[in-house]
Amino acid sequence: MHDILNIIKYDSDGLVPVIVQDEATKKVLMMAYANKDALEKMEETGETWFYSRSRKKLLHKGEESGNIQKIKKVLIDCDNDTLLILVEPKGPACHTGNKTCFYREK
Amino acid sequence: MHDILNIIKYDSDGLVPVIVQDEATKKVLMMAYANKDALEKMEETGETWFYSRSRKKLLHKGEESGNIQKIKKVLIDCDNDTLLILVEPKGPACHTGNKTCFYREK
Repeated sequence: MHDILNIIKYDSDGLVPVIVQDEATKKVLMMAYANKDALEKMEETGETWFYSRSRKKLLHKGEESGNIQKIKKVLIDCDNDTLLILVEPKGPACHTGNKTCFYREK
Repeated sequence: MHDILNIIKYDSDGLVPVIVQDEATKKVLMMAYANKDALEKMEETGETWFYSRSRKKLLHKGEESGNIQKIKKVLIDCDNDTLLILVEPKGPACHTGNKTCFYREK
């Protein structure tokens, strides 16, 4: 992940949007934000970490629920300002119990 | 799309992040931002429209390149602040000519 860490363009709050996709089912599971610390934690642990804008702190996804996400692949977009992380989830991504946060369709 | 338009929580700039996924291949193609006007245009045309933060204007995806994206499905996340749009793309999503903007892997 080192080369990616060096080219990311963070927004004015020091954050980068992260799309999380299930590597096996290809379902988009959630979108969250990471700062540099969260990305360093991801590199260190091989699991997803995010920065919660509402709680203003680093969160290890699944730390309480056990529903961690193992990182399989990290991709960066053409503008260097968005990440796509393919994961193997250990349980639902959504706090509602749904596999994905995108469970409501128009 | 009407019910979704009414529950979206826009950020302080009046924008909502939109993840675009290819309905057939399940590849995540790009992420961009929409405002209320862009969403109304999507509903009207059945194709993707975004708000460009750098150019400060509405953009019809593919208007110049011909690589429009036909909207097949619109989903909203549990927080009502992110959209996932499944599309049938008429060509590459990325200005580099790649099918997806996420073509570089760590």
